[in-house]
Amino acid sequence: MKHKTLIFQDNVLKLIDQRILPLEIKYYEASNYQEVCQAIKKMVVRGAPAIGATGAFGYYLAVKELIEKDEVDFSNEIKQAKSEILATRPTAVNLSWGIKRMENVLNKAFKKDLEKNYIMDNLLKEANRIVQEDINNNKRLGKYGNELINERDIILTHCNAGSLATAGYGTALGVIRAAYASDKGIKVYIDETRPRLQGARLTAFEMMEENIQATLIVDSAAATLLKDQVIDKVIVGADRIARNGDTANKIGTFMLSVVAKNYGIPFYVAAPTSTIDFTIDKGEEIDIEVREDKEITEIRSIRIAPKGIDVYNPAFDITPADNISAIITEKGVIKPPYQEKIKRL
Amino acid sequence: MKHKTLIFQDNVLKLIDQRILPLEIKYYEASNYQEVCQAIKKMVVRGAPAIGATGAFGYYLAVKELIEKDEVDFSNEIKQAKSEILATRPTAVNLSWGIKRMENVLNKAFKKDLEKNYIMDNLLKEANRIVQEDINNNKRLGKYGNELINERDIILTHCNAGSLATAGYGTALGVIRAAYASDKGIKVYIDETRPRLQGARLTAFEMMEENIQATLIVDSAAATLLKDQVIDKVIVGADRIARNGDTANKIGTFMLSVVAKNYGIPFYVAAPTSTIDFTIDKGEEIDIEVREDKEITEIRSIRIAPKGIDVYNPAFDITPADNISAIITEKGVIKPPYQEKIKRL
Repeated sequence: MKHKTLIFQDNVLKLIDQRILPLEIKYYEASNYQEVCQAIKKMVVRGAPAIGATGAFGYYLAVKELIEKDEVDFSNEIKQAKSEILATRPTAVNLSWGIKRMENVLNKAFKKDLEKNYIMDNLLKEANRIVQEDINNNKRLGKYGNELINERDIILTHCNAGSLATAGYGTALGVIRAAYASDKGIKVYIDETRPRLQGARLTAFEMMEENIQATLIVDSAAATLLKDQVIDKVIVGADRIARNGDTANKIGTFMLSVVAKNYGIPFYVAAPTSTIDFTIDKGEEIDIEVREDKEITEIRSIRIAPKGIDVYNPAFDITPADNISAIITEKGVIKPPYQEKIKRL
Repeated sequence: MKHKTLIFQDNVLKLIDQRILPLEIKYYEASNYQEVCQAIKKMVVRGAPAIGATGAFGYYLAVKELIEKDEVDFSNEIKQAKSEILATRPTAVNLSWGIKRMENVLNKAFKKDLEKNYIMDNLLKEANRIVQEDINNNKRLGKYGNELINERDIILTHCNAGSLATAGYGTALGVIRAAYASDKGIKVYIDETRPRLQGARLTAFEMMEENIQATLIVDSAAATLLKDQVIDKVIVGADRIARNGDTANKIGTFMLSVVAKNYGIPFYVAAPTSTIDFTIDKGEEIDIEVREDKEITEIRSIRIAPKGIDVYNPAFDITPADNISAIITEKGVIKPPYQEKIKRL
């Protein structure tokens, strides 16, 4: 994609503001970890891998701020900053994964008793490595995923698991990019993805930038297209995958998976292995974030629903492993049963 | 409901403007059949039974205009007006059903060689009868439907099959009103219903006016609530029912029916028998209206999706009879197999 999801320069994290895309292309700037937290919370940046990288830079900025201060209980303060970053969005595992990597580097540096500027240098290298690895992983994942795609396939995707959801290239859209690049003549259907409309805004934007033929639909219109076998494959991203293959992803993913399974349409999850949470057995253990009412009752600050109406707004749902035909990772395509294969990753 | 869907007075049809509800309560006025056509096309009024009644008044206004003119080929001109009204929205059968009733009255009056004012009088009576019958039928239907509802049931509904979608009381919401009135302590989940948000705007409005406990969700969030058995029953309206029970209704209904069936949740269609099209064998024969792109790419004239993106916007989908646990009509509850029972209606 022409535009980068995140750029770190001169101790400022620049994030393309995904709340206003595609109407405006503007970068949000965060120069401390609190501003990074705000960016994640408010969904300036979203998408599990992108949040993972953003969190890593947030951690870097927190360490930088605290390490300069003299009279400060560093270990306590950094613990506090870490939990603030982790609390911004509970469902995607990549956030804790990214911060864990940064923490390991920090601890190693402390053990070696490195000077401050070396510590910061090592941390910055790690954050940049997370970004670069994510892009490389997505390209590898895209290549593996492309082996599942036939000539002229029509692919449905939900939400945005694209360049914007990652450090670059994308997961579900990484597979689509790879298939497009290999001239398979694919077409894409995009679920608009209520309530935040990541499909209508972000995936549509990415597909148009790449000149990939794509058609936008409301989420519920996918069902008839699946039943009529208009759609050959469904590919989505993931926010957290349990050890048994159960997958948390954007609200609406589960509904799609039920209909796809019912009509024998392959349903693929494309995600880097950093999205796998090896500490949990199954989907039920995943914390589902419930977001504020006005994501549904208002659109761009314009009221839609009557005032006072009760709202339930879960941001994610769990697709059981049974509904998933394969999980596409940077280490290859995993087919069911998942448990043993995920363990060996 | 406090506000009437349609009022005919002094040769003007006043329609509550459902495009701007619940933000404003304003009536659109149509004083000729062309304005009635515009109101249906633009969805000032929507909902199969409401469209049926509206079409009848449109036909009345057309006859009134043409019958006064001297040098006019009446039979040709009224045929033209009729096909204009019918073309406004192709999927709901109630429009042609309503006009057929008016046409029969007109033909009878011509045969009897009645005077103009008697003809108009008979036609007006018939249109008013359609309104009154619809309200009565909905109340009867609500009573029958209520027999399917248990104490403390949690009911999911899609779109708006309420007072606003009919001449009054509602079909799916008629059942909910009846259950509420009999103190069953029910709760309702409302699908927001993209793209036109009839759930978020109209059903939420009706539920709040009636003080019925209701929670608004995005369409795709229904799936997990069905899987987790949070929802006990699904009740929707219908735009056209084929002889075998296949049902056309608002886009998204089919998706719900697949998930409900998969998790053993009863899925009911509530509709007056005027919604049954006895001329077609099955759902595939129903013409599905495809509406304009900007219903998806814009919300209240604010652009959402990138310019130039291709859009597919079917307004309805077909739920196969197999997915429907019962059809609730004013003549009673019909359970599968439907074919023979529908024939005997």
